[in-house]
This record gives sequence, structure tokens and C-alpha cells, in this order.
Amino acid sequence: MFISKRAKVSGIIEYEADILGPSVIGEGSLIGKGVIVGYPTRRKVIQIKDRASFEAYDIISDGAIVGEGCIIRPGTIIYEQARLGNNIETGHNVLLREGTEIGDGTRVGTLSVIDGSVKIGTNNNIQTGVYIPPGTVLGSNIFMGPYVSVTNDRYPPSTKISGVSIEDGAAIGCRAVLIAGIRIGEGALVGAGAIVTRDVPPGTVVVGCPAKRVMSREEYDRKQKDYLTQS
Amino acid sequence: MFISKRAKVSGIIEYEADILGPSVIGEGSLIGKGVIVGYPTRRKVIQIKDRASFEAYDIISDGAIVGEGCIIRPGTIIYEQARLGNNIETGHNVLLREGTEIGDGTRVGTLSVIDGSVKIGTNNNIQTGVYIPPGTVLGSNIFMGPYVSVTNDRYPPSTKISGVSIEDGAAIGCRAVLIAGIRIGEGALVGAGAIVTRDVPPGTVVVGCPAKRVMSREEYDRKQKDYLTQS
Amino acid sequence: MFISKRAKVSGIIEYEADILGPSVIGEGSLIGKGVIVGYPTRRKVIQIKDRASFEAYDIISDGAIVGEGCIIRPGTIIYEQARLGNNIETGHNVLLREGTEIGDGTRVGTLSVIDGSVKIGTNNNIQTGVYIPPGTVLGSNIFMGPYVSVTNDRYPPSTKISGVSIEDGAAIGCRAVLIAGIRIGEGALVGAGAIVTRDVPPGTVVVGCPAKRVMSREEYDRKQKDYLTQS
Repeated sequence: MFISKRAKVSGIIEYEADILGPSVIGEGSLIGKGVIVGYPTRRKVIQIKDRASFEAYDIISDGAIVGEGCIIRPGTIIYEQARLGNNIETGHNVLLREGTEIGDGTRVGTLSVIDGSVKIGTNNNIQTGVYIPPGTVLGSNIFMGPYVSVTNDRYPPSTKISGVSIEDGAAIGCRAVLIAGIRIGEGALVGAGAIVTRDVPPGTVVVGCPAKRVMSREEYDRKQKDYLTQS
Repeated sequence: MFISKRAKVSGIIEYEADILGPSVIGEGSLIGKGVIVGYPTRRKVIQIKDRASFEAYDIISDGAIVGEGCIIRPGTIIYEQARLGNNIETGHNVLLREGTEIGDGTRVGTLSVIDGSVKIGTNNNIQTGVYIPPGTVLGSNIFMGPYVSVTNDRYPPSTKISGVSIEDGAAIGCRAVLIAGIRIGEGALVGAGAIVTRDVPPGTVVVGCPAKRVMSREEYDRKQKDYLTQS
Repeated sequence: MFISKRAKVSGIIEYEADILGPSVIGEGSLIGKGVIVGYPTRRKVIQIKDRASFEAYDIISDGAIVGEGCIIRPGTIIYEQARLGNNIETGHNVLLREGTEIGDGTRVGTLSVIDGSVKIGTNNNIQTGVYIPPGTVLGSNIFMGPYVSVTNDRYPPSTKISGVSIEDGAAIGCRAVLIAGIRIGEGALVGAGAIVTRDVPPGTVVVGCPAKRVMSREEYDRKQKDYLTQS
């Protein structure tokens, strides 16, 4: 267990976690076993590789910020320069790389990877195994089912990043793939397993490979309501 | 390493594992490095969040049961109220949440997540990265290929659970998605990458997105036999 | 932390890693927190299960080889009999099983699983969550997007291994599935989410479920170039 003298830990560490650099853990937050907060970026690690240690990392890390009332479950790694708001939860073995920003009340499921330089709004429900690459922007109140994958390279392999944008209230079904550069409109819904290659207009439901419109969100919500009220 | 005084450990701990609450580790079982057995549920952790520690968890945990002759590989986390039979193996970094029941001889591959309240029978072969949500019921002698995903919400996002049922001897190909509420019949076979939106009758082979019947299991078994006996 | 007396560690251990058996860590390599190098095979672990410990593993392990200038990130597990060349990087919680061979300059992303008896050439870019089973052969300069899955059983479930072969310069899109026994030709390209059931000739671009040819790699490269030079 390594806790930086530069860190400001107001929350609780359940067991054997590491906090590097001037990281901040807010009041009422819980840091799980084996969590690392403030892990340095690849660029910095390479610079000091010949004398790497958590002591050396501590000196070069800019730290990460974890707000109040968060639960960071065992095995999660949060890189330096990540900023988490309040009442955020992560599952087990989540990876949040540098420059990840997450708004209040969002949950990030077990084994999900937020691969850095991603903006995520408030009250999102990101399930197990979701992959979100650099350049992605998420609004608020979004549902992402298990193992949804977002991409950011329209003509791979290249180094041009074309981020996906997902707007408020959208819902993405299990294991769907969102192709680089598209926009998922407000309240849009993507079916499980869909491969989404084009923009999805607000309030539209798409399914299939490649994904095509099947109904409006309004109609879907009626069907959902009927289903939920069935005995 | 934290071993509860309330735990009954007849097996072997290879290195630095944690056993919480009145957990039972049966004769001849092996607990890998970094494994946690008896981790408390979210509800309980939240209740004691301000004074969370493995000592505190130990007091509130109901423990988990690991039978005889099991191998629980490094990094696996087993929540309280999970019950594992005999001769079960997990891969690395598996997550078994509360209320998971697993029968004798079943293997659960590396990075698989059994998300709690799941009944799994005997001698199943669950490969790497499989996701199984609450409400799922698996029979016995089932094969689930790598990264198969099961869902439990027919009209996401909602809170109504419609569990998938998979019957004895079924085989689900790599990365297939099973939509909430369906039944995969006895001996049915699902092709790799399929998206299964409806019940699959016993002894039927389905492939595609959405999955459609292509042959009987009998015919498939003949083809398999021909293939296996080719030089 | 357990460092074998038989190991030859010329690199740096950042924090609390374990090196078993006559493993070799080359000059300028960095071993991350919680990494295990030289973990014994299933067969050997079972033989000594009743007295398993890292001390006992150390005696039976054949060790693994990590070349010079590598970065092995926290949580990665490398089994005995794995051989890594120089300047290789792994992400977090990668699993490299026994008999894995990886050539110089290859990167293996976070949560990827190389399930043993796999030959991987030089300068490949394997992204997050990729699954590669026994019998797979990769050339060099290959791109594998996030969560690509390769299979090795043409008629599952069986025990006959039909490895996939991927030739130099191929690129496989995010979450594609490659069916057992196929060959992805030199410079071929597979679209995101595709399910590839047949050989892909060199220089061909395929997309869809099942994957079909849509253009030549030459044409694709022209489109890519146009896209990259757009303002």
C-alpha cells in the first residue's frame, strides 16, 4: 500500500490501495482493494523507465480527482489527470485512463475500459465490459448495455480520431458496435448486437447489422410500457 | 492477506488471498493469489461505507461456499451468498456475484462475469469473457464459447428481469448474444456471432443476425463427425 | 512479492510483482504491479495441488522469457514457457498462457487473452479485449481492433483445433469474429463487427455477417487517404 504524502484522502480505503501524486479522494468515498489512483501516463513512465517505482511515479504523477460519495471497487485503475465527480461507482477491474472526465452519479461496470480523453456526463449507466476510446463524448442519462464497443477510427488503421457522440437519454443494447464519427441522437435506441454505421436521429430505434430504423422511440416506449405492465 | 476466524478453510491458499465471513473452502480446493471469497453485497457495503475495511466486511459477510477439489485462479472475486459445488474451476479475474449457484464440474473461463442470482448446473464449459446476468438459468453439459453475452432486459432500460434459460447439452458459439427471456432448448446449437431473439427449439441449429434455423442438431452432429474424422 | 532465486531479472520491477522459476527479464524492461511471470501450467498445478504455494510453483516452473525494453503493465499474468521478444508492451490485466510466442515491437492491449500455443510476429497492434485461442498464427504489422475474437473449433464443441492464420499487414475491425480454420490474406481488411466464415484473399476488404467482399484494399487505401486529408 502506497499513499502519497501529496494526496488528500478524505474517504476510506478498504484495503491495500495505492494513491499516487496530488490525488484527491473526496469525503465519503470508498477506495477498494488493489485500486491505483494517479497512475502516470505512458509517456511519463517511459521517461523514467530505468528507475520506475511507485515512489518515482508519485513524484511525476499529476494525480487524479475522485469526488465525494464514490465507490471505486477492487482492482480499478485510475490514471493521473482523470476527474471523477460525486457519487460515481465503478465495478471491479475498471480502467480509466488519463483525461477521462465523468459526471456525478454515473456508474461504470466491471471490466469497462474508458481509454482516456473521454467526456462522460451525469447519471449514465455503463454496464460490464464496455469499451470507450479517446474522443468519445457522452451526455447524461445514457444506458450502455454489457460489452458495447465504441470506435474512433473511421478507416483503421490510422491515427485520425473521429469521436462518437452520444446524446442525452440514448440507450445502446448489449454488444452493439458504434462506428467512429457517428452521432447517436437524444433518446435514440440501438438494439442488442447492432452495428451502427451512420448517425441515428433523435428519438429513433435502430437494430441489425448494419443498423436500420425500425420504429420511433415513442412507439418503443409504448411497447416497453405494455411489456412492463404484463403480469 | 485476510483470513476470517469464522471461515473454515480445508483447502490450500497459494498466495495472498482473502477469505471473509463464515466462508467454507472444501478439502482439496486451491485458492489463487489475490482471490477474495465472501465479498459483501453492494447494499451492505453502502451501509458501513464510512468505516469500510476487510475487518468490517468480515463481520457483515455471510460468506461463500467453495466445495471440494476446486481451482479458483488468481484475481477471482466471489461475493457472499455464492455457492460452488465440487471440482469447479475458474480462470483468472472471474467475478461471481451474490447468489450465484454453480454445480459440480463446471468451468468458468478467465474474465467471465456471473452477475449474481444465477443458477448454473453441472459440467458446463463456460469459456473466456462470458457475461451472464441475474435471472439466467443454465442446465448441464452446456458449452458457451468466448465472449457469449446473455441479457435479461427485453425492453432496456428497465428493471423487469426476463431471464434466459439454457437447457442441457446446448452449445452457444463465440460472441453470440442471447436476448432476454428466450429459451435455448435441449441440445440446441447457436452459431458464432449470432443474435438470438426468439426461442430455439430443442435439437435445432441457428445462425445469423437475427438467428435463423439452418439444420437439425442431428445433421450438425453428422457434419461434425465427418469433419473430425477427416485426416 | 516473490522473486525466484533462479530468475535473471535485468529489468525493473515497479512494485510487488512475482517472478517464478528460471524466468528472464531483459535489460530495460519494466514489470508492473501485481504481474506474475512464470505461472505454472494447469497440468503442473494439479499435480501439486495439495501443497500449492508460490514456493512450490517456483520449483516446478520452467519460467518465461521477457526480452529487452518491454513494458508489462499491472496485473498481467505470463505463464511459463511463454517467450516475448524485445520492446513489447502489454496493457493492464493481460493473460499470456503457456507456449505463447510474441515478436519484437508488438503491443497487446488491456484485458486481451492469448490462450497459449499461439505464434505472434513483430510490430502487431492488438487492442483492448482481444481473444486469441491456441493454434492461431499471426504474421507481422497486423492491426486487431478492440474485442476481436478468434476461434479454433470449426464444429464446437469438439477438441480438434483448426487454427486461424492472419498474414502480414492485415487489419481486423473492432469486435469482428474469425471462424476457426480460415486464412486472412496479406493486407486484407475485415470491417468492424463482421463474422468471417471463409478465407479472405490477400488485399481484399470484407464486411458484414457473414462477411462479404466489398472492395479491394487498394480502393480502401484511396478512400482512407481521402478521408485523412479532409480538413
